[in-house]
Amino acid sequence: MIEVENNLLEKFTRVRNHSTFLCEPLKAEDYVVQPVMDVSPPKWHLAHTTWFFEQFVLVPNKKDYKVYDTDFSYMFNSYYEHVGERVLRADRGNMTRPSTDDIKKYRLFIDAAMEEFLSEAELSQNVQETIELGLQHEQQHQELLVTDIKYILGNNPLFPVYRVNTIEPEKMEARKARFLDVPEGIYEIGFEGNGFHFDNEEARHKIYLQPYKIMDRMITNQEYMEFMLDAGYNDFRFWLSEGWEWCKALQTKAPMYWHKMDQGWYRYTLNGLKPVNPFAPVTHISYFEADAYARWKGKRLPTEFEWEVASNGILKAEYDKGNFVEALSYDTMPASVDNNQMFGDAWEWTSSAYLPYPGFKTVEGAVGEYNGKFMINQMVLRGGSCATPKDHIRNTYRNFWHPHLRWQFNGIRLADHG
Amino acid sequence: MIEVENNLLEKFTRVRNHSTFLCEPLKAEDYVVQPVMDVSPPKWHLAHTTWFFEQFVLVPNKKDYKVYDTDFSYMFNSYYEHVGERVLRADRGNMTRPSTDDIKKYRLFIDAAMEEFLSEAELSQNVQETIELGLQHEQQHQELLVTDIKYILGNNPLFPVYRVNTIEPEKMEARKARFLDVPEGIYEIGFEGNGFHFDNEEARHKIYLQPYKIMDRMITNQEYMEFMLDAGYNDFRFWLSEGWEWCKALQTKAPMYWHKMDQGWYRYTLNGLKPVNPFAPVTHISYFEADAYARWKGKRLPTEFEWEVASNGILKAEYDKGNFVEALSYDTMPASVDNNQMFGDAWEWTSSAYLPYPGFKTVEGAVGEYNGKFMINQMVLRGGSCATPKDHIRNTYRNFWHPHLRWQFNGIRLADHG
Amino acid sequence: MIEVENNLLEKFTRVRNHSTFLCEPLKAEDYVVQPVMDVSPPKWHLAHTTWFFEQFVLVPNKKDYKVYDTDFSYMFNSYYEHVGERVLRADRGNMTRPSTDDIKKYRLFIDAAMEEFLSEAELSQNVQETIELGLQHEQQHQELLVTDIKYILGNNPLFPVYRVNTIEPEKMEARKARFLDVPEGIYEIGFEGNGFHFDNEEARHKIYLQPYKIMDRMITNQEYMEFMLDAGYNDFRFWLSEGWEWCKALQTKAPMYWHKMDQGWYRYTLNGLKPVNPFAPVTHISYFEADAYARWKGKRLPTEFEWEVASNGILKAEYDKGNFVEALSYDTMPASVDNNQMFGDAWEWTSSAYLPYPGFKTVEGAVGEYNGKFMINQMVLRGGSCATPKDHIRNTYRNFWHPHLRWQFNGIRLADHG
Amino acid sequence: MIEVENNLLEKFTRVRNHSTFLCEPLKAEDYVVQPVMDVSPPKWHLAHTTWFFEQFVLVPNKKDYKVYDTDFSYMFNSYYEHVGERVLRADRGNMTRPSTDDIKKYRLFIDAAMEEFLSEAELSQNVQETIELGLQHEQQHQELLVTDIKYILGNNPLFPVYRVNTIEPEKMEARKARFLDVPEGIYEIGFEGNGFHFDNEEARHKIYLQPYKIMDRMITNQEYMEFMLDAGYNDFRFWLSEGWEWCKALQTKAPMYWHKMDQGWYRYTLNGLKPVNPFAPVTHISYFEADAYARWKGKRLPTEFEWEVASNGILKAEYDKGNFVEALSYDTMPASVDNNQMFGDAWEWTSSAYLPYPGFKTVEGAVGEYNGKFMINQMVLRGGSCATPKDHIRNTYRNFWHPHLRWQFNGIRLADHG
Repeated sequence: MIEVENNLLEKFTRVRNHSTFLCEPLKAEDYVVQPVMDVSPPKWHLAHTTWFFEQFVLVPNKKDYKVYDTDFSYMFNSYYEHVGERVLRADRGNMTRPSTDDIKKYRLFIDAAMEEFLSEAELSQNVQETIELGLQHEQQHQELLVTDIKYILGNNPLFPVYRVNTIEPEKMEARKARFLDVPEGIYEIGFEGNGFHFDNEEARHKIYLQPYKIMDRMITNQEYMEFMLDAGYNDFRFWLSEGWEWCKALQTKAPMYWHKMDQGWYRYTLNGLKPVNPFAPVTHISYFEADAYARWKGKRLPTEFEWEVASNGILKAEYDKGNFVEALSYDTMPASVDNNQMFGDAWEWTSSAYLPYPGFKTVEGAVGEYNGKFMINQMVLRGGSCATPKDHIRNTYRNFWHPHLRWQFNGIRLADHG
Repeated sequence: MIEVENNLLEKFTRVRNHSTFLCEPLKAEDYVVQPVMDVSPPKWHLAHTTWFFEQFVLVPNKKDYKVYDTDFSYMFNSYYEHVGERVLRADRGNMTRPSTDDIKKYRLFIDAAMEEFLSEAELSQNVQETIELGLQHEQQHQELLVTDIKYILGNNPLFPVYRVNTIEPEKMEARKARFLDVPEGIYEIGFEGNGFHFDNEEARHKIYLQPYKIMDRMITNQEYMEFMLDAGYNDFRFWLSEGWEWCKALQTKAPMYWHKMDQGWYRYTLNGLKPVNPFAPVTHISYFEADAYARWKGKRLPTEFEWEVASNGILKAEYDKGNFVEALSYDTMPASVDNNQMFGDAWEWTSSAYLPYPGFKTVEGAVGEYNGKFMINQMVLRGGSCATPKDHIRNTYRNFWHPHLRWQFNGIRLADHG
Repeated sequence: MIEVENNLLEKFTRVRNHSTFLCEPLKAEDYVVQPVMDVSPPKWHLAHTTWFFEQFVLVPNKKDYKVYDTDFSYMFNSYYEHVGERVLRADRGNMTRPSTDDIKKYRLFIDAAMEEFLSEAELSQNVQETIELGLQHEQQHQELLVTDIKYILGNNPLFPVYRVNTIEPEKMEARKARFLDVPEGIYEIGFEGNGFHFDNEEARHKIYLQPYKIMDRMITNQEYMEFMLDAGYNDFRFWLSEGWEWCKALQTKAPMYWHKMDQGWYRYTLNGLKPVNPFAPVTHISYFEADAYARWKGKRLPTEFEWEVASNGILKAEYDKGNFVEALSYDTMPASVDNNQMFGDAWEWTSSAYLPYPGFKTVEGAVGEYNGKFMINQMVLRGGSCATPKDHIRNTYRNFWHPHLRWQFNGIRLADHG
Repeated sequence: MIEVENNLLEKFTRVRNHSTFLCEPLKAEDYVVQPVMDVSPPKWHLAHTTWFFEQFVLVPNKKDYKVYDTDFSYMFNSYYEHVGERVLRADRGNMTRPSTDDIKKYRLFIDAAMEEFLSEAELSQNVQETIELGLQHEQQHQELLVTDIKYILGNNPLFPVYRVNTIEPEKMEARKARFLDVPEGIYEIGFEGNGFHFDNEEARHKIYLQPYKIMDRMITNQEYMEFMLDAGYNDFRFWLSEGWEWCKALQTKAPMYWHKMDQGWYRYTLNGLKPVNPFAPVTHISYFEADAYARWKGKRLPTEFEWEVASNGILKAEYDKGNFVEALSYDTMPASVDNNQMFGDAWEWTSSAYLPYPGFKTVEGAVGEYNGKFMINQMVLRGGSCATPKDHIRNTYRNFWHPHLRWQFNGIRLADHG
């Protein structure tokens, strides 16, 4: 039984408004397209997150509730095989109707229905948990909204600005990195307590770790450029076999969004095309690149367990004092002296495959499709990025992506044998 | 030397306004997407036709003219390899910027510049011809606008209405078709006179025809359904080898946009989902289907020469009295008693490959890229469809498409050996 | 009613033995593979040509004939949809069984049965014609055997020799080419007489030709190299749009089998890797390349009608005195002084699409699948190559291939407007 | 420092002869083809394993050794990027030359050179280890030889027999399966001792296991058929998301090599097409199928650690008394009463991704490319199959395959939470 928010209505309003806020700078055209399969149209995110509340909260629980539009149920279902035929993911970007205006009306309608529902008499624990899940779900899509918008704008020849960043990135140098020691022994892993968490963070269980070292900040763009200058992209010895094939097939030579210009390396940010900041964490790299960088450096990536144990001890961060990026154009910043960059900079690739914890059980029904079915061919990332909603971050959170994907704010922290 | 319009400014304004008119029913989202490679986003059509006038008329001829935006030159070039790097066709649908509003501003700017230019002193013959070509080019894109909009809306699960058709299709039966005889002999083919025409209609030249018969109207939906009912789609004997592969790979069982419903066959029209009109010409079929239908019927398709000779003689149509569809939702109508459906119903697949006429010479420079380089793997269509601008139709006009394509209003007229 | 050989048995034996002869230099491994879809394994050719006689002659006509092996009927059917399920073409190269030895036994069995059958009492005209068709069919496969063997060996890093050529190619220079004039007028096209011919050569019919010029020999390797040196492969202006895409996608820079070595250009021949002979006709080029060469030269390719008319008149060749290559390693030779290279050097790409002649009718039944169903997206070639059996060549013969294919001995003769 | 065989020459001869023995039943044609990318031609296996000894033993160590043929070095290199350009894997099946006879000569030459070398004075520890690695490498390829031959023959419409099996499979019923309990605690994992092992089995290290249950035999064909009958292949709830896509794309409905006949289910074995033996372990299934079966059953697959711990304790098998299949046609047999089927039946899919053990270090140089670079997107299998050479099996051995692959003898053992 998880503990839910005291004031669910307040949180509901706050989270829902944030999605709207994220889309404010978009032009009507930006809402529609799906340039690659992994990137969904912004209007789809707005509709799909809304559909979740209609489908899983209002339809089964609200008295006399009538579905807003049966077509929407069909079109904004994502991966929930339980809930009828879905629109093929690759076709999302061809659905010009319903229009964004119609979807905004849908949002208003559902928001009103939800507010009414939330103001009514006692909600059962189960319903409260489903609502909380819906809000967490919307926060996940908020991160995708940011990265998908970046992809849509960043692949446009005009390199449009999303939002002008009013916070100047600090120009200070990155501090020297240290490798901190963690002794061997039995540790506990997984979520503990009554707060919200996903099924894949359960159950808390013991593991045994060998002694290891872990870096106290992330790898910077400057450090990554040394790998590039040392022909790291051209030397098969640093690469996993599939990574090497990937490199050759796509002729990858730099992180995503980087452009070599006469004046040096630039990168597309949501603030426009900018010179690469040498002291900020490198992001938009694949697992293959993170792993190759580590090999080139004679180190390795940490396992998700090593990361989590460090986050509870030697690299424990006080979340509120972390360096969550407040700038609205979403970018990474250099590490300040007292910051270990564990949260809110970039998701950190770990060397752990995404697999179930001991005793993992899938929940019955559509909501249970959430996590377990993706446990193959994906690697775990930890920490949370500058695009992750601040209250959506915790140190047991297990993010996961296929090793070749780069459109998220993903970066590198190194580890070593103890 | 071709004869150009008396009043080029009047025609310029009229043609340009028609493109705007065609887009009026669209929502902002409809302008953006490219669901398959052959279909271009409506906003791209609006920009590309505008760019033509800027690139080929204003830049080389208008005094002190400054390019509106160099990015546009890059982005709205289509196939003109002469004029710098172009945006890959398959990526057009991912370019959310410039927005449709920005493109409309671009149109207004170029229209104003063109109007100024057209009001200035004498235009050379060469410039007048280029402007005429630009207008003909825009009319070609107007037909594509209609068919691309139909594709975008017709593949949406909501089957949106584009424009409500105020003209009721006639309910009368199709009249009985006759096969008219044309004697063997030497005939002349190709454009004659001083009016506008494309390079591929030149030069007028003699050909020899064997005696043949040609049908005095197009094949109707009802007639086509007989082929379907006779398992025409399942019998390899009627199909070209590549057509049979195409059929099996796509599991084609009916013309494009047809849907089998409980009440019978429906088809998506720009007026929404409607019952198939049994007496209207069948459209949205590939060459493979047209050819298979003809074989099943024991007939064949006419060559483009047979078609053109008939259009000058036995099937001569008075254009002004033709059955050009005035309805704005673009659909085919049953043939009236005195109508041979040669123009303005559907493009008619001929059995002629698209090849140069004797003496064909490509014009120098970018404008010369227009026609010659497509003369491979395409079949000629004649006549013009309900989506073709009325003054863009003539009986020497050679349209061409790859044999598998179906999103145009393409239909069937049969021929036979004499 | 076609006239068949006086001594069908003698011809049967001669043609069948030639297939065996062609395979003599092969190692067991060479019989098996299908490196690309268009190339069939040699053992498949041996079996398929045998199956034709069993299926269309013995089964329907020989008293008490029992099928040799029903599996063979299934496996060695090629494109005859009429005769049961066939093995997918792309899978042919994975069928290691039946072994080549088993197929040779099959050949011996069918040869014996056919010899018995041919020695029996009177054969009907129809049966004789089917046998003649089977022999012509086998001769077509003999040409494919040569070109498929060349592909299999020529794509092996060891560049194995097929047969050592005992005839030294002449070292003389190619004589200067002339463009001969043909006046305009009505000409007759198509097969005439009682000899064997394919359905696609019928019926003889009148056409009208404009005045034209045609070259009196083929384009040489040296002439083609001038196009290469002039950056012909890098200049889109010479290319059909699809040809240009093909060029870029495959990074084509030279004819097939050409290799740039330190000492200059070499090409793989069935006699091993040899320096390019500057005076021999260029071969192993696509239609795209032939067409681009012609445009670069300011000329064009002849139509198939222009070619045939010339072959009956101004370029009439006496077949017996032609330069049929007697060398067994199959290569093209320089034109001698009195040779116009119309036959037996290389198939000549024409600018005609492969389409039916007026009055073309497909024969009923499986044999009728022969030609008509390929009449789309292919271009006609005329003349016959060094790999074509000598008595399989005639000036009305219509060969056809897709425009991108290069593994046949295909070359260039230019034409021009008169 | 690993302990090597007392008599390396004896082992060398024995292992090398076994490869030859495995190929004895093949026809010349069977040696050549590569029907899918994962399956290599048998002649390639024979050459590649030979090349290993030449490249890594003879070239660097044997005095005055001259490379047999430099072309072979190029052509039979597999994945060793260190040793020059390699032939693309997908092209292996098109290399008809060198012929199998030439490769057999190569084997004889290298065998003679190795025997000479092995009879010479003292071999360094390092050289002995490389030779041992070469023999282990050849044994790995012997298993692939068996499975690749099965694929080549099993996809032939004639279903050829490889070797007639003289041992009748036992007809007894499978005994009832039990789930044995293993208590939680710290266990040690990884190779211990001085025998040969791969780098990926190092280093022995502690892990912590939660209490679990593990099945004391493998899942039988009969048990798997219950899943099929219960529509297991049609119910998304049992499948990983990628597994479900795989199922639908390939329309998978049964294990590989299974054929539904009028009389029931048959499967292709190297002994020909045979009725499915209900009591033998199910094999030729993907990870997706193994995982789906487990979910359907309400159980799960064991981790590789759970498997290894059980193999050292509760399921400890005495290898010599195990049920290694002696039949030469390679098939699985029912479990006898006192047999837990841990070794020599089928590789068992575990739920562990293939990842490095703590402290894993890649060996320098080409031999080091062996294992580490495949540590992505693959799942670990344990135990060894009926196609694995008997002395190549050990309980710390980590086999690995991509989750969709089925052509190996892979099966299922279930586990459960304790």
